[in-house]
Amino acid sequence: MKALVYTDTLEVQYRDEPNPPADSNEALIQLEAVGICGSDMHAYHGHDARRVPPLILGHEAVGKVMNGSQEGKRVVLNPLITCGVCEHCLGGRSNLCAHRELIGMKRPGAFADYINIPEQNLLEMPQDMDSVTAALTEPVATSLHAIYLAEKIIHRPLSESRALVIGGGSIGVFAALILKHKGCGDIYLGDTNPLRRETAESLDICTVYNPIGDDVPEAGSFDLVIDAVGSGRTRASSSAMVKAGGIISHVGLQDNEAGLDTRRLTLEEITFLGNYTYSVLDLKASIDLLYQGALGSLDWVETRALGEGAAAFRDIHEGKAASPKIVLIPEVA
Amino acid sequence: MKALVYTDTLEVQYRDEPNPPADSNEALIQLEAVGICGSDMHAYHGHDARRVPPLILGHEAVGKVMNGSQEGKRVVLNPLITCGVCEHCLGGRSNLCAHRELIGMKRPGAFADYINIPEQNLLEMPQDMDSVTAALTEPVATSLHAIYLAEKIIHRPLSESRALVIGGGSIGVFAALILKHKGCGDIYLGDTNPLRRETAESLDICTVYNPIGDDVPEAGSFDLVIDAVGSGRTRASSSAMVKAGGIISHVGLQDNEAGLDTRRLTLEEITFLGNYTYSVLDLKASIDLLYQGALGSLDWVETRALGEGAAAFRDIHEGKAASPKIVLIPEVA
Repeated sequence: MKALVYTDTLEVQYRDEPNPPADSNEALIQLEAVGICGSDMHAYHGHDARRVPPLILGHEAVGKVMNGSQEGKRVVLNPLITCGVCEHCLGGRSNLCAHRELIGMKRPGAFADYINIPEQNLLEMPQDMDSVTAALTEPVATSLHAIYLAEKIIHRPLSESRALVIGGGSIGVFAALILKHKGCGDIYLGDTNPLRRETAESLDICTVYNPIGDDVPEAGSFDLVIDAVGSGRTRASSSAMVKAGGIISHVGLQDNEAGLDTRRLTLEEITFLGNYTYSVLDLKASIDLLYQGALGSLDWVETRALGEGAAAFRDIHEGKAASPKIVLIPEVA
Repeated sequence: MKALVYTDTLEVQYRDEPNPPADSNEALIQLEAVGICGSDMHAYHGHDARRVPPLILGHEAVGKVMNGSQEGKRVVLNPLITCGVCEHCLGGRSNLCAHRELIGMKRPGAFADYINIPEQNLLEMPQDMDSVTAALTEPVATSLHAIYLAEKIIHRPLSESRALVIGGGSIGVFAALILKHKGCGDIYLGDTNPLRRETAESLDICTVYNPIGDDVPEAGSFDLVIDAVGSGRTRASSSAMVKAGGIISHVGLQDNEAGLDTRRLTLEEITFLGNYTYSVLDLKASIDLLYQGALGSLDWVETRALGEGAAAFRDIHEGKAASPKIVLIPEVA
C-alpha cells in the first residue's frame, strides 16, 4: 500500500509500505480521509519523544471496514486504544487509561491506504456522511471534551459567559464554534498568524485579535480561557486574561515552560483544567454535531491528496496554510 | 490600648497604641483571642508587599461587641471586608470581591485589645463557646473551603478517595481533620519539620512522612493533593503525587516559582484549584464544626499571652513551635 511516513525531523515521505498484517484479529480499514493534527506537526518538528521515525502518523480517520462483523460499513475511528477494564475505563474516563495507546504514535497511523485497529474502536456514523466532515470527529471531540469539563464547573452558564480562545488552529476554531453553538455570544480568539486570523474572522462568530498586537482585550475579563496552544507564553497570557473565579482550560501541549501565574490563580481562585483527548461519548456527540451541521459551513477545511502530504506538512510548518485543518485523501478512497 | 505591632522585618513589638477611633460607624470589639496565621509570618519575614510596617497584624479573632445593636454579644470576626454588591459578593463568592480588604493588611489587625470592624463582619457564635476554639474559625474555614471546592468536582466521594496534605501547618492539619470527618480513611500528610510531624502524628488520623526522607508515598496515587505550602517545590511534588484525573487543591502562597508540571497536568487531565480564603457560609459551617467537636480534641493548639507575642513569632520563625497554631490572648480578655 501507499503511506505517508515520518522519516526524520521535517521530513515525511509518500512511499510504498507493507499492508497491515492479514493475520491480525483486528478490523482492517480502507481509509477515506485523515486529518493532519497539531501533534503530527509536533512529531514532524522532532519535538515529540513519543513518536519515533520511521512512523506512519495520522489518527483523525474515517474509512470502510474490509473484514469481520462490520464488513462494508463506513466508520469513524476512535484512535485511542484502551484496556477497557481499569478504574478509568470503567469510570467513563477511558482517556486516562494508563495503557492507552494512540494510533500513529507507537502503532502505525492512518496516513495510508489501510490500517488495522481493534473492532471496539470503530464508531458508527451515518452512512451518507461526507468523509471529510467525518474525519473532523476527533479534533471536534477534543474541543468538545475540554468545553464539557469547563461547563461542569463554570459558575454561570456558557451562554452568559465571556470566553477567550488562544490559538486559531483546529482545536481553537472548533472550540469557538462549539461555544457559539452553546449560546456563548462573547467570544474572542487570539492568534499571531495573520492567515489563521483571516480564517477565524471569516467564520463571523468571534472577535479575532493579534496577541502581540495592540488590540489585546482587557485583562481579567474572561470567565473561560481555552489555551489551545499550551506554551509558557500562552499560559502567562491565560493567567492574566482570566477573571477572578474563572477557568483556564488547557488543551495544548506545545512546551512545559514556566508561565502560569500560580499566585494569581490562588489569590483569585482560578481553576486550571488539564485536558487530554476525549471519551467515547465525546466522539459520538461530535459525529452528531458534525452531521447535523451544528458547527456551520466547514468550507474553511482544506482537502489534499495523501500523495501530496509532504507539501501539506511543509506549508503548515512554514505558516503558509491559511486553513487550520488539512484533510488528506488516500488514492484508494 | 496595648497591641502587638509589626515594626520591621523579623520584628514585632508589644506596645501602647491609640485606641480605635470612637467616631467610627463600625462595631468596636474587645478581643478575647487571636490566632497567628502563616500570612502574619509571611509579613514578619518581610515577604508580603501588601503588609507594610508599622502595622498591627492578626485576623483570626474572637471578641465581645462593645457598642451598637449587638453590644455585649461574643462574636467571631469575619476578617474579610467586602463590598456586598459586586457580581462575586452577590454570587456567593464574596472572597473574590475586587474591593476585598483583610484586617491586619492595610487596616489595623486584631493583635490588640480592641479593633473596629463593620457590623456586617460579626458572626454569631454560641455564647458558651470557648474563645480559643472560636478563634480557630478562620483557619478551619480556609481548609473547609478548599475541600468544599475539591469535593464539588472530585470524581468519586472523599470517603472513597486517597488524599495527600502537603504541609503540617494549621491549614494542613485542619484539612486532614476535615477529610477524616468527611469519612476519608486514607490520608497522608508530609512536612519537613520533625516537630510538626510529631504533632500531626499525635492526631492519629493520617500517615505522616518526611517529603525529603525515604518514606515518601507512591507517586501518582492520590485522588486529591492539598498543597498547604504553595512553593515551587511543593507544586512539583503535587504534580508528581496526584493521580491521573485527580485534583491539586492549592492553598499556600509561599512563592510564585515554577514547579507545576503543566505537561503532566494536561496529559493526565489533572485539575489545579486555586483557593483564596472562604465564603461567609464556610465561616458559619466552621463555627458549627468546632462547637460540635467534629475536629476532635484541639489540645494541640497552643495559647500564649499577647504580651509574649514577639517570642511566639520568633519561635515559629525558628521552627521551634511544635504546635501549628498559637493563639494569643490579650490582657483585657
